[in-house]
Parts: sequence; C-alpha cells; structure tokens
Amino acid sequence: MKLPSKVQRTLRIVVVNTASSDAADEATLAAQARRNTALRIGLLESGYDIVASLPADIFLPERIAQIQPDMIIIDSESDARDVLEHIVIATRDEPRPIVLFTDDQTSSSMDAAIEAGVTAYIVAGLQAERVKPVLDVAMKRFNREQKLLDELSDTRRQLADRKLIERAKGVLMARNRLTEEEAYQRLRSMAMNKKLKLAEVAQRILDVEDLLG
Amino acid sequence: MKLPSKVQRTLRIVVVNTASSDAADEATLAAQARRNTALRIGLLESGYDIVASLPADIFLPERIAQIQPDMIIIDSESDARDVLEHIVIATRDEPRPIVLFTDDQTSSSMDAAIEAGVTAYIVAGLQAERVKPVLDVAMKRFNREQKLLDELSDTRRQLADRKLIERAKGVLMARNRLTEEEAYQRLRSMAMNKKLKLAEVAQRILDVEDLLG
Repeated sequence: MKLPSKVQRTLRIVVVNTASSDAADEATLAAQARRNTALRIGLLESGYDIVASLPADIFLPERIAQIQPDMIIIDSESDARDVLEHIVIATRDEPRPIVLFTDDQTSSSMDAAIEAGVTAYIVAGLQAERVKPVLDVAMKRFNREQKLLDELSDTRRQLADRKLIERAKGVLMARNRLTEEEAYQRLRSMAMNKKLKLAEVAQRILDVEDLLG
Repeated sequence: MKLPSKVQRTLRIVVVNTASSDAADEATLAAQARRNTALRIGLLESGYDIVASLPADIFLPERIAQIQPDMIIIDSESDARDVLEHIVIATRDEPRPIVLFTDDQTSSSMDAAIEAGVTAYIVAGLQAERVKPVLDVAMKRFNREQKLLDELSDTRRQLADRKLIERAKGVLMARNRLTEEEAYQRLRSMAMNKKLKLAEVAQRILDVEDLLG
C-alpha cells in the first residue's frame, strides 16, 4: 500500500451513493458492495479524505453546502439522472469537480451527465488503482474549465456593461442636449457621488427613462 | 465480439504512436505491442475506422491536415510531451478531440497534456472493452468545450469590435466636429459603400489617425 503524499493538501471528498437497497437481489447487492469497496480502497490509498458518504436525496444540496468538499464522487452502477438533478442544484452556485463512476454506457446518459456539469464520466473504471489518476485529471480539467467559464462570464459582463453605458449616454445626450464627452462626465460624477459602478449608474438612468417614458 | 453500430457514422481515427524502437529492451517492446493490440481491438470492436497509424514526427501536422480525422488517439506509455508539441501544431487551426492513453501519472505531464488541449487523459485504461466509452465521452466533452470556446471568442470579438467603433466615432467627432449620431452615420455609410463591417471601417479610421498623428 502506497503512503499518501504529504506535500499535497488532503482533498476532502464526498461520495454520493445511488445504490437502491429495495428490490435488489443478492447478486446486485454484492456487486454494489464490491464497487463501493474498490472506490474506498482507491481513495484511501491515494490519501484522500472521505468526509461523508451521502445518499442521493433532497437533503444533498444542503449537506454539500455545509461540508464544502473539494470534490464530489458519484458511484452509480446504472442511470444516474436522478442523482444528477440533486447534484446540479448542489453545485449551481459553487461549482465543484464531479467524478461519476458508472457502468451505464448509453449515449443519452453521457449527454445528461456532461450537460449537468460532470467533470469526468468513467465507465467500468472502478478499480482501486485507477481512482487516483482519474481524480487527479478531473481536478486539473475542472480548474481549466472554470478558468474558461470565468473568462466567458467576465467578457460577457464587460460587453453588457458597455452596452448599458452607451445607451445611458445616448439618453443623457438626447434629453439634456449634451455632447458625448459631457454625457460621459455626467455619468462618471454620478457614479463617484453614489459610489456606484458606471454600469450601475447607467442601469438606473435607463430604469428611470423607462418610467418617464 | 460486438457488431459495430450501424446508426452512427463511422468515426475516422488517427492513432499516433510514440513507441521508440531504438534502445528498448524486449520486455518493453512486448508491453508496447500488447497495448497497441488492445487499442486496435477496442477500436475495431467499437466500429471505428483507423484511417492511419502515424509516428509522432514533424510531418504529423501535415498528414493530419490531409487526412482530416474525427479524432486523434495518442498511445504513449510514458512522457508524451514531445508528441504533444506536434499535436498542438496539428490541431491549432482545426481543433479535434484528442485522447491520450498513458501510464504516466506525473502531475506535470497531466498539466502539459490538458494545457495542450487533450480532451481525455486516460491512465492505465487501455483494455479493449474500455476504449469505446472513453471515446464516446471524449467526443461529447470535446463538443461541449468547443461550444464554450466558440462562445468566448465570439463574445471577445463583439467586445473588441465595440471598442474599435467607439474609438473611431470619437475620432470622427473630434476631427469633424460631429455629434455622436452623425459620426455613427458616417461610419455606417462608409461601411456600406466599401462593403466592410463597421469594425473594419473603424479599424481603418484608427490606422489612418495613427498615420496622421
């Protein structure tokens, strides 16, 4: 057994179980137990900290918000769509890397998982020795994707701000017969006085313009 | 042996081999041969079409441009950084999904691969039966990432265009004592006459402004 690396901070992991105990025969339960053991061994050998093992129910979002794990692992033998719904809600405001181990190879399940923000969709890969590299890659990929998403939302915001400011300038120019420069200075001084961003001031001007008709 | 699905168009795949035949002992060569066989069996059983098997050399970009594969698979037992350099060049203008099978678990190799645009980094996963789901997920993930990247570059372009147009309007207003509306109309009619985009006209005005000082 490898010793956990001491350099890296221990990742805090939540495992979400989807095993339905009702209406499952003995062979299914035994297979589930084997998968579960392989996952736990893999996590422990890699030096990860399983801080909680949660069922996929409506309390999941709340509990994930409390625990604040570094990563969420879903162990789902078959269709994971029900779990994914809860996970989407739980990570909407605070995205986290999600690794899904499954035996479900159907194309629509893959689509649903990737759409839901699953970072790694791993089919038939639940051997203990494979867990660490899968998690390592998922973490790096998640960080890259987050960087991209941040960049996108930042650029979108800049564009939206610019549109607002231009429209508000236009309103001021028309209503008060100002030049562009004068309108811009008026916006700026209002922003400074009210301690607001230029775009916020612009939004207020447009709101009031709507009201006044 | 499963029959290939007939519904889906056959994916055309290029396999890039990184096996260095010089200075390798017999055991290494045998292991390489085993990996290679597993990959080929997995691809054939999944109904993929291996259109070429290429060495990782300086001709790789040119040959990929000729072949236009749907996906690139790199089979690299150890450090794949040399291959990745060629792959980056080969896919810079036309991104394609890249799947890397490797036994290299070092963090810096993972970083290099993800940075280079590798869609799936699969450690110790080269069993024939795992190939299909890995490729399926990689394809879906690639499409999602491309959508995101397209959206980002589109938003960036809109923002850049808007900045250009605003600056050009400013130049026209100052030089010709125009109102904002007049400056905008001047830009528009020049764009229509020259069959250019507004941003292109704006760029020309700014270029000339630079020249005139």
